[in-house]
Amino acid sequence: MAEIKEKSTIVLFSGDLDKAIAAFIIANGAAAYDHEVTLFFTFWGLNALRKDEKLMVKKGWLESMFAKMMPRGADKLGLSRMNFGGMGPKMIKHVLKKHNALSLPQLIELAQEQGVKLVACTMTMDLLGLQQEELMDGIEYAGVAAYLGDAADAKVNLFI
Amino acid sequence: MAEIKEKSTIVLFSGDLDKAIAAFIIANGAAAYDHEVTLFFTFWGLNALRKDEKLMVKKGWLESMFAKMMPRGADKLGLSRMNFGGMGPKMIKHVLKKHNALSLPQLIELAQEQGVKLVACTMTMDLLGLQQEELMDGIEYAGVAAYLGDAADAKVNLFI
Amino acid sequence: MAEIKEKSTIVLFSGDLDKAIAAFIIANGAAAYDHEVTLFFTFWGLNALRKDEKLMVKKGWLESMFAKMMPRGADKLGLSRMNFGGMGPKMIKHVLKKHNALSLPQLIELAQEQGVKLVACTMTMDLLGLQQEELMDGIEYAGVAAYLGDAADAKVNLFI
Repeated sequence: MAEIKEKSTIVLFSGDLDKAIAAFIIANGAAAYDHEVTLFFTFWGLNALRKDEKLMVKKGWLESMFAKMMPRGADKLGLSRMNFGGMGPKMIKHVLKKHNALSLPQLIELAQEQGVKLVACTMTMDLLGLQQEELMDGIEYAGVAAYLGDAADAKVNLFI
Repeated sequence: MAEIKEKSTIVLFSGDLDKAIAAFIIANGAAAYDHEVTLFFTFWGLNALRKDEKLMVKKGWLESMFAKMMPRGADKLGLSRMNFGGMGPKMIKHVLKKHNALSLPQLIELAQEQGVKLVACTMTMDLLGLQQEELMDGIEYAGVAAYLGDAADAKVNLFI
Repeated sequence: MAEIKEKSTIVLFSGDLDKAIAAFIIANGAAAYDHEVTLFFTFWGLNALRKDEKLMVKKGWLESMFAKMMPRGADKLGLSRMNFGGMGPKMIKHVLKKHNALSLPQLIELAQEQGVKLVACTMTMDLLGLQQEELMDGIEYAGVAAYLGDAADAKVNLFI
């Protein structure tokens, strides 16, 4: 008899480093427990998936503004509090390293290794003018309907 | 045999435009999927339901202060980040329009058409001194007990 | 036949007074409904559990910095918006008192009386250098695995 896996979903709406870390720790924990996990990145949460380098993609003026103002990737996010113009994130990264805890880029890598489904919200990508080549490899693309399909089957659904 | 509808609930605690948009997109998506959806507005989330115009309701000093300081309605909300003294919300509204996406007032209207239950938290209304005539028509009024009753039956429960 | 209790879990990630109040109102409501409720405090949410007094615990430099910068206990938290350098929290506390609503310290006490399980996230405690003697009595200590165990069995799971 085939075992049915439990499912969990997390919407990552926030673009804050601390919240992204929390989302990935919960997602990786659930995957380690053999849950089927979907992390759905929407709005500012998409910034965690952006590639580090600047890409020459054609954009309108407003889309270029967004692209410039939003942090480029998991290593550039700020904190939800005590950001202190970038000092806070440095302290958190230092503290993670000191305790041999995983950094956000390492947490993302682990999530991919564990088969956590990383899904970029296509509607937000459209709105903010983000293109697939600007986001990291190995992720999926879908809209709110796909998210709701996963969430309706899941035991644990969080919005972060 | 009568089909039992799936249920979803969302608590909208935040008074940010971007979070309110996300809440309504998920709520409308779930309603389109034939879920029975409850959106429960508490704390700053209530601001999305406020009427645009200034009403002459009798209030104490503190309640008048809250009423003055809090944004009056869905069209007045700020962003959770990149607000830039009101420039950010203008950019987001412009971007929504450009992509033929619904504005927040339109999303609220659609939610009402689809039968999404919009519930204002009476306890917060008491605390902040908001009165029913200050909130939009066609909504319900209830406390945390009613929310929990809905949530205990629902598959997807989010706090935004 | 023994009745099986419904379960609810709330992750309190936020260190904001208003969000902590919301979390405890929902938790106490669910407990009054005879749910088995777990409140899991992680990241800045741990500040709500800190003791008021300054304790002489040995800490590294970075841990001392965190300890100094983070609010010490439920009575010291700020607001997620309209904080106005501490004026906002005073207004909210005044309003709660005026309406005979419970303050955050009273909500915490009620939660403990009702058997709500208050759990401090040990991983965050490690990272921020918080020690058990710095947190209030009568709470439990656990990691994300224990949280997920509770959440997988629960009907209502929220992240605040």
